[in-house]
Amino acid sequence: MTFIGLDLGGTKVYGVVLDGENIKERAKRKTPASGGSQAIVEVMAGVVEDLGGVHHVKAIGIGAPGLIDRKAGVVKRAPNLKAWEDDFPLGPALADAVGAKIPVVLGNDVEAGVLGEHRLGAARGKRNVLGIWMGTGVGGGLVIDGKMHRGAHGLAGEIGHMIVEPGGRECGCGGEGHVEAYAGRASMEREARRQAAAGRETMLMELAGDDRMKSSVFGKAFEAGDPLTIELLDSAVAAVGTVVASVQTLLDLEQIVLGGGIGERLGDVLAPRIERLAHALTFASEADFHVAPAALGDSAGAAGAALLAADATD
Amino acid sequence: MTFIGLDLGGTKVYGVVLDGENIKERAKRKTPASGGSQAIVEVMAGVVEDLGGVHHVKAIGIGAPGLIDRKAGVVKRAPNLKAWEDDFPLGPALADAVGAKIPVVLGNDVEAGVLGEHRLGAARGKRNVLGIWMGTGVGGGLVIDGKMHRGAHGLAGEIGHMIVEPGGRECGCGGEGHVEAYAGRASMEREARRQAAAGRETMLMELAGDDRMKSSVFGKAFEAGDPLTIELLDSAVAAVGTVVASVQTLLDLEQIVLGGGIGERLGDVLAPRIERLAHALTFASEADFHVAPAALGDSAGAAGAALLAADATD
Repeated sequence: MTFIGLDLGGTKVYGVVLDGENIKERAKRKTPASGGSQAIVEVMAGVVEDLGGVHHVKAIGIGAPGLIDRKAGVVKRAPNLKAWEDDFPLGPALADAVGAKIPVVLGNDVEAGVLGEHRLGAARGKRNVLGIWMGTGVGGGLVIDGKMHRGAHGLAGEIGHMIVEPGGRECGCGGEGHVEAYAGRASMEREARRQAAAGRETMLMELAGDDRMKSSVFGKAFEAGDPLTIELLDSAVAAVGTVVASVQTLLDLEQIVLGGGIGERLGDVLAPRIERLAHALTFASEADFHVAPAALGDSAGAAGAALLAADATD
Repeated sequence: MTFIGLDLGGTKVYGVVLDGENIKERAKRKTPASGGSQAIVEVMAGVVEDLGGVHHVKAIGIGAPGLIDRKAGVVKRAPNLKAWEDDFPLGPALADAVGAKIPVVLGNDVEAGVLGEHRLGAARGKRNVLGIWMGTGVGGGLVIDGKMHRGAHGLAGEIGHMIVEPGGRECGCGGEGHVEAYAGRASMEREARRQAAAGRETMLMELAGDDRMKSSVFGKAFEAGDPLTIELLDSAVAAVGTVVASVQTLLDLEQIVLGGGIGERLGDVLAPRIERLAHALTFASEADFHVAPAALGDSAGAAGAALLAADATD
């Protein structure tokens, strides 16, 4: 049985054809920054075409950023997509654009990425898994007893907004001391710019130039030994390690996977440090658990979206 | 179908006969403080006799404190039971003592209490539930999608040892800033005695006398407006409210139940305050969830133990 998965990101649309557990085709196009939601839908339909179209495809899955209404196939808000119009019915619109009478299943992009890593990547074969997606913000997804745990209102998994330091650093959401305030790319950038404005020297400013500080900027500055970058990543490790310790104490999981832009670029460095700290701080320290970087790279989200489609049409 | 449930506590053994969802009989005896584990087993067999014996009973469930090996029916350590010998096979010994050829199922006492409240008490009909048992320590149990979540190694649910204040007050387990360090009876007593020794006036010292500060002592001092007691309970509310906010952000539950000695004595006061704080601090503040005191009182643990037996022999 063949499914198409599409991962709608702020800069690119990734697509895969998934046959069982095998990725058969891959394609990507740039996400348009203007033209409204319909322009994005047309690019997504183009990726479907690049993948060979929808013949023999049972369903299409989409992983989309922002606030999702799964049942209606609507992306209500997507602050990371410049061209997006609120409350746009992405699922039905893509079905129209590809002219297909096959189901289009909409899910959250992080949920899709975590599902991909759970079934096909770094958490394969584990039944209790937490995905921590360190990107612009910090998202998450939770697999309990082999099933994606969405919670009573579909709002579960937001590990980035768990509190690690009451009254601590302000989060983009307005809260205080959230994991994301220390471990999200945008929060780290805000803190770096604040310290630079106060006279602190840092390579991050030169590397970023007028652009935002991408994950690759943090990666390069870290590898060059930039002291502020090292401090920022130390704080990120402390926040994520502490929250993983607490989550382990509550949930007794087997595997934690680090994904997202920062997770992909720096996961090899961060994962073992987070694992060590979490083991040191967790209550049942004898319980075996591991923290590993995501293994599927760019394809995790698209492969997971295809799995969402497969699960929904089983 | 009829089951017997036994709740083995530090001071009393409670027992019930459960028929479907109805508690048909109740009995209790004092837990012996000497005579070893076998003396405790004989008292438990006496409670079974008080309940009418094991005719027509399909299985016996036990909720026991301490560290449990469920499969072997062994209580490995039970610091709250004075007479207990380590690694005693409670399940098989009780089966012998009642002379019954019916299964004896052993579980953790808090897990049994949470299961009782989930199926028959304050969380009836809810599929995603956290029980917080504020007793000498702070224990917990988690129901996910209608099932008790025990985790990869049977160690899940220890909400008392989640970190709410990194580097904060020392916990009985040696950790820092755990929920239990603020909300457990023994920790509150330690803090009260520390402040009293430093010259702080408090009614808690007179009420307790030479005895430990029971939940009823905290209840009376709170109702009399003792300032230190109010401060201690404020800290407990802050710790539990903060951790509930974080857990909600991750798990999106429907119902939180407060049990244990402190929960039973002061739940009516604490639950609404914890609920307000958790709503104020959680990320998805629009999601409906409630914090309520346990509803079954003394019987929760025994009823839950009977349900453990029913589930295991289904």
